[in-house]
Amino acid sequence: MRIGILTIGNELTSGKTQDTNTNFIARQLYRLGWQITAMLSVGDNDDAIKSGLEYLRGLADGLIVTGGLGPTVDDITTAAIARAFGRRLVMDEAVLQHVKDRMTGRGLKWTENNAKQALFPEHAETIENRVGTAWGFALEQNGKIIAVMPGVPSEAEKMLVEGVIPLFRRKFSEDDVQVVTRIIKLSGVSESSIDQELATVPFAKLGVTVGFYPRFPELEVVLTARHRDRDKAQEAITQAEGEVVKRLFANIFAYDQDSLEGVVAALLGRKKLTLALAESCTGGLLADRLTNVPGSSVFFERGIVTYSNASKEELLLVPPAVIRQHGAVSQETAVLMAEGVRKTACTDLGLAVTGIAGPDGGTEAKPVGTVFIALADGKNTLCRQFAFRWDRRRIKVNASQWALLMLKNYLTEC
Amino acid sequence: MRIGILTIGNELTSGKTQDTNTNFIARQLYRLGWQITAMLSVGDNDDAIKSGLEYLRGLADGLIVTGGLGPTVDDITTAAIARAFGRRLVMDEAVLQHVKDRMTGRGLKWTENNAKQALFPEHAETIENRVGTAWGFALEQNGKIIAVMPGVPSEAEKMLVEGVIPLFRRKFSEDDVQVVTRIIKLSGVSESSIDQELATVPFAKLGVTVGFYPRFPELEVVLTARHRDRDKAQEAITQAEGEVVKRLFANIFAYDQDSLEGVVAALLGRKKLTLALAESCTGGLLADRLTNVPGSSVFFERGIVTYSNASKEELLLVPPAVIRQHGAVSQETAVLMAEGVRKTACTDLGLAVTGIAGPDGGTEAKPVGTVFIALADGKNTLCRQFAFRWDRRRIKVNASQWALLMLKNYLTEC
Repeated sequence: MRIGILTIGNELTSGKTQDTNTNFIARQLYRLGWQITAMLSVGDNDDAIKSGLEYLRGLADGLIVTGGLGPTVDDITTAAIARAFGRRLVMDEAVLQHVKDRMTGRGLKWTENNAKQALFPEHAETIENRVGTAWGFALEQNGKIIAVMPGVPSEAEKMLVEGVIPLFRRKFSEDDVQVVTRIIKLSGVSESSIDQELATVPFAKLGVTVGFYPRFPELEVVLTARHRDRDKAQEAITQAEGEVVKRLFANIFAYDQDSLEGVVAALLGRKKLTLALAESCTGGLLADRLTNVPGSSVFFERGIVTYSNASKEELLLVPPAVIRQHGAVSQETAVLMAEGVRKTACTDLGLAVTGIAGPDGGTEAKPVGTVFIALADGKNTLCRQFAFRWDRRRIKVNASQWALLMLKNYLTEC
Repeated sequence: MRIGILTIGNELTSGKTQDTNTNFIARQLYRLGWQITAMLSVGDNDDAIKSGLEYLRGLADGLIVTGGLGPTVDDITTAAIARAFGRRLVMDEAVLQHVKDRMTGRGLKWTENNAKQALFPEHAETIENRVGTAWGFALEQNGKIIAVMPGVPSEAEKMLVEGVIPLFRRKFSEDDVQVVTRIIKLSGVSESSIDQELATVPFAKLGVTVGFYPRFPELEVVLTARHRDRDKAQEAITQAEGEVVKRLFANIFAYDQDSLEGVVAALLGRKKLTLALAESCTGGLLADRLTNVPGSSVFFERGIVTYSNASKEELLLVPPAVIRQHGAVSQETAVLMAEGVRKTACTDLGLAVTGIAGPDGGTEAKPVGTVFIALADGKNTLCRQFAFRWDRRRIKVNASQWALLMLKNYLTEC
């Protein structure tokens, strides 16, 4: 199937916003074996939308459009598309009620301009928005399909996967082709190393396509197989996955929709272990990531963000002399932080991070990016030193990632 | 001047690579007051390039193309453009020598396929590549100009600024148009309310364009003015900004590149006040946001993530009886958490958040999304109750946003 993508918005053509929807859509469809013939962006402008649609319709069987479905005056996508397809706009009372309910439910005042979001071109099929108020819709004309989604990435991404892709597969009777995908998530390895490690895997012979997608601080290897027989597709994926795991097992931390924090949470839950955190340079990010997992209160007792030396001494029982002698950023302090938080919180495990996130505070011996991570279980305390690069935020993210990886490896082996 | 952008590469249409060149180019040109009429991406395919060029030529005075100038077989951009413009390819001996010198200078072996990089359409003007071996070029036909650059972002960005923009300005005898932009950041108000509040501002009369950009949990209002005289553009912006502020001042928290956490950090620094945090449902996110600000160790003493009741009692001195009687999620507990963390950390201010992030744990009286935020300064303790919606992550983000807003408002007034 040949697909064209059109993203609409002055924020795109002014360069104010980096368009991420196009890339997300292309990646999802490419995995299904569909071909993207052209990806276009235009501003919130009637003529530009019309000529863009004409151009894309000449190249593709299906079009996916995002942006300009909101309530404000510059949201003109629905009207422009109705005009381009020669359809009038009709009010969908069910959607109108849904938008009203959602707004009042969120304590927002209903204003009449919101009614615009319930107007759709005649004979359009509406597509539910489970995240926001801007519903999508699909039109069919001369055997070609156009699906329209909101521009907010979280809404567009959900609607694409749950609404638009199933609709396209139905309309183009793609149901008989089975697509099996496997996402392998890795950390602590570069894209070019992965590329080299996997160079000897006969993906083509196995009937599997492979893609690498960096998502800092992680990397995804995505395997896709298409076959009329689902078992055959699954078999090809299993074989290819085996080859990937054989070469990269040390760096794999999760599969498909699982996150690193989710895997750690599941392991803690399964082993009935409790955890307390002591964070310095990650500043609460580690606790934030773990508490994003629903049900984390089962294993997560407390987290302490000790930015001052006083807080390390009072709350983690780190002796002032140790900080004076070795510094707040040192193996000695990291170990005592992990042991101290474990003891005071009465948990099974204590995990501590101390480091220099920058931009200031680095020295020749301990430059910005120096981080110590320690894990205490009451018998032993592991500690590792890291030298991260880049800016303050990325040092925080990398430190939280490695703290979770150390914890995961410990939990896998204990 | 109306510009069309075309980026070429199979890595774009497969979703493997996020196209950043288009956004970079659009941003640079928009600042010059040029209009981007369409931004298109196609694969390394002769027909797709040809039809893309035709489409864009109909919409613009100038085209900027990136990608597909390298030495490998899939780099077909130069040949495709020559064909589309009916020109033959000629070897540029000076560029050929330059490419040879650069390769041997970098210790790379010269292979014949590299000579391809010195082939250009007849009568093209070459554009130097100071970073790599793929030179760019520009063609003129029927008063329209097309400039072609390599796809590697670092090379394209340098060539755009140093080669292509000066060339376009020369060809189109562009007089300097000045562009002044002002970003106004808001929170706690819906896009449609802003739209209505601002409906009476005569933006067009003031010569200012306005855009709304939701970036959860914030919203940006962006004002732009273009004028030959920079002072006049600035004056128009100042007037328009005054009108926006008059109507929405209660919801404005920052301007331009400033973040809410940055504004709070600057206020704390200016007033020489220290802060300690007690977080339950935000799980460390509030500490994480504040410690993203460089230099936050000056005001941020500690943060305590108290997920268990025991930790609230031990570390924040909340009496067990209060939690038993009113619940961990209550105004009484929130107030005592803020006062307790302030006292134990010996800081000027204590800020506390307790709530139900879900998906479980809600009751009829306190549904998921119920959050209490308290701020203690030693004399008074403010406390507000909120009812947030959506999923766990968004409840956390919204709660952290409102905690920062309460703190900012306190600091502005104290």
